[in-house]
Amino acid sequence: MGANEFATDGTIDSFENQHPGRDYEIRFDAPEFTSVCPMTGQPDFGTITLVYVPEARCIELRSFKFYLQSFRERGIFYEDVVNVILDDVVAAIAPRRATVTGDFHARGGITARVTATHPQA
Amino acid sequence: MGANEFATDGTIDSFENQHPGRDYEIRFDAPEFTSVCPMTGQPDFGTITLVYVPEARCIELRSFKFYLQSFRERGIFYEDVVNVILDDVVAAIAPRRATVTGDFHARGGITARVTATHPQA
Amino acid sequence: MGANEFATDGTIDSFENQHPGRDYEIRFDAPEFTSVCPMTGQPDFGTITLVYVPEARCIELRSFKFYLQSFRERGIFYEDVVNVILDDVVAAIAPRRATVTGDFHARGGITARVTATHPQA
Amino acid sequence: MGANEFATDGTIDSFENQHPGRDYEIRFDAPEFTSVCPMTGQPDFGTITLVYVPEARCIELRSFKFYLQSFRERGIFYEDVVNVILDDVVAAIAPRRATVTGDFHARGGITARVTATHPQA
Amino acid sequence: MGANEFATDGTIDSFENQHPGRDYEIRFDAPEFTSVCPMTGQPDFGTITLVYVPEARCIELRSFKFYLQSFRERGIFYEDVVNVILDDVVAAIAPRRATVTGDFHARGGITARVTATHPQA
Amino acid sequence: MGANEFATDGTIDSFENQHPGRDYEIRFDAPEFTSVCPMTGQPDFGTITLVYVPEARCIELRSFKFYLQSFRERGIFYEDVVNVILDDVVAAIAPRRATVTGDFHARGGITARVTATHPQA
Amino acid sequence: MGANEFATDGTIDSFENQHPGRDYEIRFDAPEFTSVCPMTGQPDFGTITLVYVPEARCIELRSFKFYLQSFRERGIFYEDVVNVILDDVVAAIAPRRATVTGDFHARGGITARVTATHPQA
Amino acid sequence: MGANEFATDGTIDSFENQHPGRDYEIRFDAPEFTSVCPMTGQPDFGTITLVYVPEARCIELRSFKFYLQSFRERGIFYEDVVNVILDDVVAAIAPRRATVTGDFHARGGITARVTATHPQA
Amino acid sequence: MGANEFATDGTIDSFENQHPGRDYEIRFDAPEFTSVCPMTGQPDFGTITLVYVPEARCIELRSFKFYLQSFRERGIFYEDVVNVILDDVVAAIAPRRATVTGDFHARGGITARVTATHPQA
Amino acid sequence: MGANEFATDGTIDSFENQHPGRDYEIRFDAPEFTSVCPMTGQPDFGTITLVYVPEARCIELRSFKFYLQSFRERGIFYEDVVNVILDDVVAAIAPRRATVTGDFHARGGITARVTATHPQA
Repeated sequence: MGANEFATDGTIDSFENQHPGRDYEIRFDAPEFTSVCPMTGQPDFGTITLVYVPEARCIELRSFKFYLQSFRERGIFYEDVVNVILDDVVAAIAPRRATVTGDFHARGGITARVTATHPQA
Repeated sequence: MGANEFATDGTIDSFENQHPGRDYEIRFDAPEFTSVCPMTGQPDFGTITLVYVPEARCIELRSFKFYLQSFRERGIFYEDVVNVILDDVVAAIAPRRATVTGDFHARGGITARVTATHPQA
Repeated sequence: MGANEFATDGTIDSFENQHPGRDYEIRFDAPEFTSVCPMTGQPDFGTITLVYVPEARCIELRSFKFYLQSFRERGIFYEDVVNVILDDVVAAIAPRRATVTGDFHARGGITARVTATHPQA
Repeated sequence: MGANEFATDGTIDSFENQHPGRDYEIRFDAPEFTSVCPMTGQPDFGTITLVYVPEARCIELRSFKFYLQSFRERGIFYEDVVNVILDDVVAAIAPRRATVTGDFHARGGITARVTATHPQA
Repeated sequence: MGANEFATDGTIDSFENQHPGRDYEIRFDAPEFTSVCPMTGQPDFGTITLVYVPEARCIELRSFKFYLQSFRERGIFYEDVVNVILDDVVAAIAPRRATVTGDFHARGGITARVTATHPQA
Repeated sequence: MGANEFATDGTIDSFENQHPGRDYEIRFDAPEFTSVCPMTGQPDFGTITLVYVPEARCIELRSFKFYLQSFRERGIFYEDVVNVILDDVVAAIAPRRATVTGDFHARGGITARVTATHPQA
Repeated sequence: MGANEFATDGTIDSFENQHPGRDYEIRFDAPEFTSVCPMTGQPDFGTITLVYVPEARCIELRSFKFYLQSFRERGIFYEDVVNVILDDVVAAIAPRRATVTGDFHARGGITARVTATHPQA
Repeated sequence: MGANEFATDGTIDSFENQHPGRDYEIRFDAPEFTSVCPMTGQPDFGTITLVYVPEARCIELRSFKFYLQSFRERGIFYEDVVNVILDDVVAAIAPRRATVTGDFHARGGITARVTATHPQA
Repeated sequence: MGANEFATDGTIDSFENQHPGRDYEIRFDAPEFTSVCPMTGQPDFGTITLVYVPEARCIELRSFKFYLQSFRERGIFYEDVVNVILDDVVAAIAPRRATVTGDFHARGGITARVTATHPQA
Repeated sequence: MGANEFATDGTIDSFENQHPGRDYEIRFDAPEFTSVCPMTGQPDFGTITLVYVPEARCIELRSFKFYLQSFRERGIFYEDVVNVILDDVVAAIAPRRATVTGDFHARGGITARVTATHPQA
């Protein structure tokens, strides 16, 4: 079966949008995101939410899972996580609109949320 | 009694809107939606929400239940489920406005939501 | 005591708005609404919400309770319940604005919500 | 200590706004409001919410508590509770904007919410 | 390791915004805020929320934790807490936009929330 | 089809327990119960929960729905509702154990719950 | 109608238990309880829960509402509220078992719950 | 990789319990269960929960997923679903203890839960 | 007024139990507890719950608030906080039974709860 | 400061129990647990809960965090995760009693929970 036809190497794969005549919205919620704090070397945890309106291509969900897993060993700040994911999504599928949000677990008693949108309003 | 007068064959049946002079909104939430993933053959699950403003006709709720059940054995992607339902609703009753949302259960730790609206804003 | 001075016969009674110079909002939530399905003869259940801005008169709450109870034996569709209540409220007190929502329990696994507003936006 | 320097007699006391150059919002939620139904003599219960933007003066919280307690033995309708509190707040501190909401417990199975705003939009 | 390279003395430290070309939002929720009531000498408790869009610099989260801890022994009113934090954030990083909210625990049965935004709308 | 083979006249119908060798538990939650207060003539509302261990026979769910609907026009106190349902269940299927609970909506600001079990512990 | 046949003067009225052969449980939840703190003169608020197994008599719900209202102007400590209500219930209906719980709102940031049972275990 | 080494044909596969010296508990919650009502031919939905203490063998999770999917086209009553799953689990791994619960969606406004345990207490 | 007649110096004050003939339970929930971590010097936060059955004396609530505040500047481990409070309660009022629980906020992504009871079971 | 005096290498460190005369309970909830599925190589996620009664030694919380992090790259089944942690806790501090629970995220639509206790009941 074709379960292997999409990328599992951490790149965001895509398929053709079957409904390009309509401005419709797709949202993925990924509560199993984890990366590494570049200052302390400790793991960080959070939920990544992607909301986008496709143009010619849609993100293939399974490749997106592997893409998010590629952050598991990566030292990166919260602000960069969200901006990098947004940049990669835009590079992969050139959506009409896209917003990425990261909701990160409390550190020092403080939770953080970062949200970035393309294109600028 | 007339419980059988509407369709049970998977087509969306309708009745005459008794209040056409008013722009009012009808919403159905159907948490028992299930279809089949065309890539893996595994069942998918989700909640379909339809919100519409009727023009001349309203959707008959019981026929809509049978219509949604017609997806039970059908291999179809999330993005297509929502767009196909919206197309079928528009074809059946030509509403003033309609929005269909599909909230699908987590696969690979990621939940998906697709939303489409007619007509385009 | 004056507890009997308002209607208990199912008509919507009212009293004079003491603050007509101000556009203020009144909301009633009635989760004990029940009527009868005209197709199956089975009871339906739901919550009726009325939000309105009074003009010269306000709805007397106790009479509104009896008014809603008058649907208990009445065979009526969801779409009609909401539009009829809105019409009756408008006829009774001619409010500046009014919205009626009916949130009905699941039938066949699907819940329904109908919302109507006066005047049209 | 100065805990007694503000009013405890049921009048709304105030202090000078230290940040008059900024339009900022203050919200009080008071879930222990109780008054008396003028028709039945029975106690009513609810939550009063005040949201305002101060001009020259801010409401002193402790005096506001005593002010709300002054309704405890007072026979007054829901609609009047909210409008009277708004009038008294406006008279006491002349805020740039103020909204008062009363969420009252169910009577006869129906809950009521009244909301009033100054100045008119 | 560099865990000590940012301020721990109660000043708000910052680092360079790596994505200045994009208007993106950062939110911190700090539910462990405590200060002292200047009237009674009793401790106050609340949650401080900061939402901002960075310009050239971002707030370093750990220094912000120490900054909020500097209020622990400080006698200060709710209204001042929020305005002072907003002023200090603006002074530290000159953000494009910033909003500070303080949600304070009930005193005398009444909870308080204060919200201030920079710049004025 | 056999959908009509069980009672719809308000009697509790049953079918043969296919697993009599095992002590297993069946629970029905019916949140759409309504009867009439014999003192005021006003409708009462509540949720009826039945938990039982079958002996030779199980309760047919659809007939139980019609049985509960038979209370719709009946004047009966809360305490009696629960004891009568328990008696009728015991008479209909002689279960090994059964418990009936009624959770009734607030009247005069007070909610009531009545629970009865057969046989006595 | 007989709505007035039970006490409204603050005594706990009762009616004959129709099911004395069965040990069944009755629970009342009264979230609108208010009394006065005997030390500060300030109002206290809480929820009173009564759970009992009747012997010969059951508590009439409406008289219980008036009974609880009789505490509205009464200066009494939390510990006494619960013990006094339990004593009064026992005196009024001599139940097989009874438990009274009072859940009182936060004072000084601390909530209190008092629970007493008759007879002693 | 060995992802295919366990059954996908609807039988419950197992692996050797690595900790047989300890009485420990394993719980699976499967909210995507669906079967068919044998009386109406309509789909049923529910959550199956299995709690067991293994003896020599543990249930392989992926084969259990396929096992539950084998009910998708099967006409079967609620009471039978739970007893059949319990019997199949006992036959497959002979656990020290096992309990199966089925929480089924509302039909006719009534939800049902069936619970069976092996061995009998 | 007598609001000052009890201790405010951090000792647990008490008053005579008016119902010594009955084994009844008193519970205080104090969500505003804060102390200092003796290893890092950073503030800790948590909720302290005390449940006790009084013998001859009851804890005066206001003095208990001041007692808990005495931990505000104290360096102490979670395990000690709970045991020390229990010891102090036992020393102050010699209750029939007492349990102290501390629910502490996440540190390093892990929350901690400590529970101690007197006397030993 | 002594923040480094406990283990950070993945071993469970401990300190002397200051209250050995009392049977008290300590609970840690760690929602940031992640390991790797040995069959698919994909990351697993879950919450580990440890509840124990100390004998001579208590678990040092920070070393426990590092201990749990040592599973991050480890291929291990759910059943083994829980039993291994329990074994390691018992080996490290020989508690009077200890229970470990792992609540793992849904895989294939099914969540799993494993619970093990020492010593056997």
